[in-house]
Amino acid sequence: MSSELDTLRKEIDNCDSELLDILSKRYKAVEKIGQIKQTLGLPIYSPDREKKMFKSLKQMALQKKISPDLIEDIIKRIMQDSYSKENNHSFNCLNDNNKYIVIVGGNGKLGGLFLKLFKSSKYRVVSVDKQDWASSSDYFKNAALVIVSVPISLTKSVINKIPVLPKDCILADFTSLKKEPLAAMLAQHSGPVVGLHPMFGPDIKNLAKQLIICCNGRQKESYRWFLDQLIIWGANIVDISADEHDHYMKYIQVLRHFTSFIYGNFLRDQDVNLKKLIDLSSPIYNLELTMVGRLFAQDPSLYKDIVFSSEQSLDIIDEFLKYFSLNFSHLKKEKGEHFKAEFKETSEWFGDFSRKFMKESKRLLIQGNQK
Amino acid sequence: MSSELDTLRKEIDNCDSELLDILSKRYKAVEKIGQIKQTLGLPIYSPDREKKMFKSLKQMALQKKISPDLIEDIIKRIMQDSYSKENNHSFNCLNDNNKYIVIVGGNGKLGGLFLKLFKSSKYRVVSVDKQDWASSSDYFKNAALVIVSVPISLTKSVINKIPVLPKDCILADFTSLKKEPLAAMLAQHSGPVVGLHPMFGPDIKNLAKQLIICCNGRQKESYRWFLDQLIIWGANIVDISADEHDHYMKYIQVLRHFTSFIYGNFLRDQDVNLKKLIDLSSPIYNLELTMVGRLFAQDPSLYKDIVFSSEQSLDIIDEFLKYFSLNFSHLKKEKGEHFKAEFKETSEWFGDFSRKFMKESKRLLIQGNQK
Repeated sequence: MSSELDTLRKEIDNCDSELLDILSKRYKAVEKIGQIKQTLGLPIYSPDREKKMFKSLKQMALQKKISPDLIEDIIKRIMQDSYSKENNHSFNCLNDNNKYIVIVGGNGKLGGLFLKLFKSSKYRVVSVDKQDWASSSDYFKNAALVIVSVPISLTKSVINKIPVLPKDCILADFTSLKKEPLAAMLAQHSGPVVGLHPMFGPDIKNLAKQLIICCNGRQKESYRWFLDQLIIWGANIVDISADEHDHYMKYIQVLRHFTSFIYGNFLRDQDVNLKKLIDLSSPIYNLELTMVGRLFAQDPSLYKDIVFSSEQSLDIIDEFLKYFSLNFSHLKKEKGEHFKAEFKETSEWFGDFSRKFMKESKRLLIQGNQK
Repeated sequence: MSSELDTLRKEIDNCDSELLDILSKRYKAVEKIGQIKQTLGLPIYSPDREKKMFKSLKQMALQKKISPDLIEDIIKRIMQDSYSKENNHSFNCLNDNNKYIVIVGGNGKLGGLFLKLFKSSKYRVVSVDKQDWASSSDYFKNAALVIVSVPISLTKSVINKIPVLPKDCILADFTSLKKEPLAAMLAQHSGPVVGLHPMFGPDIKNLAKQLIICCNGRQKESYRWFLDQLIIWGANIVDISADEHDHYMKYIQVLRHFTSFIYGNFLRDQDVNLKKLIDLSSPIYNLELTMVGRLFAQDPSLYKDIVFSSEQSLDIIDEFLKYFSLNFSHLKKEKGEHFKAEFKETSEWFGDFSRKFMKESKRLLIQGNQK
C-alpha cells in the first residue's frame, strides 16, 4: 500500500508537470494575441471576451465536476500574472499630430510610468521639472496635452505657474484630490480640462485593468482621445463629479488606512512579539495583519500628504474617533446589550455584499499562504 | 489578422479545457491517496511531503520559464479546494478502549463538528446538553475524554457542574479564552486536563491545516493520544501558556475586529452609497472593505461574547482608543510633522514582515475578483 501511495504521488507530480506545460503553451498564445492587438490598435484588456470566456469555462467545469470558483480563480491568477509582466509592447497612437505631450513631474514615479506609456505609443512626450521650467516654453506652446503629476501639496501652485497653452490643448492632473486642482486648472486654462485620479501605485508594470477615476472639467469631446488612449493601454475609466470623488476618497484613502497606521503603531508599543502573533493567528487575522503590515512597506510621504493636505481628511478622522469613543462607552455601560442590534443594522446596510465579501475572503485565504 | 486572433483564442480555450482535464485526473489521485491514508492511519495533511513537492515544482517552473509564485498559488488553490470538500472518510482511532467521548454542548455548531469527527474514527461519542445532564451520569463514569464546548459566558458554570470523572479521563474545553476555564477544570478534576482553542469557524468541512492552540493543564503524556488524533484529522497544534494565549487573543480576536465593527457602523451612518464606494475603490481598499463586510455576515453572538465576557477585552479597546486619540491630536497639532518618524519606527518593528506582507497582499489581489 505504501508503494501504491508512491505511485499516486508520482501521478500527482506528473499532473503538475503537465500543468506547467499547459501554462507555457497558454503564455505563448497570449503573447501572440498581444502582438496582434498592438498592430490592430485594440485595447489589451477585453472585458466582453473575458466575460464570455469565464461563462463557458465555468459551464465546462461543472460538466467535468470541477468547482467553477476554482477554475475561475486559477485562470484569473494566470491572467494576473500575464498582465503584471513588464512588456515592451508598442501601442497604437490615437493623436498622431506631432504635438507634444508634457508631463509636469515626469521624473516622479507616477509621471515616469506615463512617460513610458506615451513613448510606447510613439508620442512626442517630454518631462518638465522645476529646474527646466524656464527652458520649456516651446513644449507648452506646441502641446496637445499637459499633465500635472506632482505631490498634492504642490499641485495648486504648479498649476498656477503653467504658461498660456494652445486653445485646443488638454490640461489634466493626477492628484488624489480633485475639487481644488480642477478649479485651479479651469481658472488657468480656457480649453479642455480633465481631472484624473489613477487608483494604483506607480510600481505597476502596465495599465491592464487598472482603475482611473475621471472628473470632467470642460470640453469632454476634446479630451476623448486621451481617455481612449488610456483604455487602449488597458485602463478602466470611471466618471464621477469632483465633489463626490473627494467625498468618497475620505473613506477610501484616508480613514481605513489611517486607522491601520494607528493600529500598527499601537502594536509596536505593546508587549507583543510579531512572530508569536503570526503563529497564533487564524488565517483571517493573518490577513488583517497583512493589510496593516503592508502599509508600512510603503512610502510614508504619500500617506502623510493624503491625510495632512486636506481639512476634510482630518475632519473625517475626528468624526470617526468621536463615533468610536461614544459608541464604545455606550456599549460598555450596558454590557454589550446594544451590540447585536448595531451589528444587525450594519449587516442589513451591507446587504448581499456581506455574504459576497465572506465568500470572497474565504477564496482569498489560500491556506498556508499567509505564513 | 482578425481570424488569426480567433485561432489563438481557440488555442487558449483548448489550454483551459486541458487544464480542467488535468484537474480531474489530479483529484482522482488525491482521493485515492486519502483512502490509503485512512487505511494506514496516516494524517491527511503531510507538511514534509508538501514542502518537498513545492520545492521541486518551483524548480521545474523556473526551467519552463513560469513564475514559481504563480504555480505555488495555483497548486495551493487546488489543494485548498480538495481540503475544503466534505468527505466521509473514516479515520484511524487512536484510543480504542470502548470508553465514551463526551461532548458537553455537542449540539452546538463547533461541538457538532467534533462529534462528526469522533464518529468518523469510530469512537463511542455522545453529546450532553442542558436537558440531558441528569441522565448522562453513565457516560461521565465511563468517559475517556470530556470536552466542554459551550459559549464563553457559560463555560465556568458548566465546568463546575461536571460530575466526578475517572482518574485517567481527560477533561478539555474549546473556549476562546484559556486562563479561567483551565483553572476551573484543574479545580474540578484531578486527572489530565488540557485547554484547547480551535482557531476556525464551525463551518469548515474538516480539520486539514486548521490551527488549534493548546494550553497544558496537567499530565501531558496522558492526553497525548487526543492531540495525536487531532493531528490525524489534519490539525496543526501550537502550544502556549494560558496567560500568553489570553494576552495575544486581545489583539487577534478583539481589537482589530472590534475596530472593523465600529468602522462598518460608521460607514452605515455616513452619506455613503456602498455600490459607489466599491466602484471607486482601488483593489487594496476593496480588500479592506471585504474584511469589514465579511464580519457582518457572521453570528453577532460570538463577537459579543468575545468582547463583553472579559475585562481584558474592554481594557485593550479602551487603551487603543486613548492611544488613537492622543496620537491623532499630536499629529494634527504639528501638521503631521511626526507622521514619518512614527511610520518608520513601526516599519522597523514589522521588519522583513512588512515587505513580505506587501508581496503577499499583491498576490492576493487577483484582479477583478473583488467586484
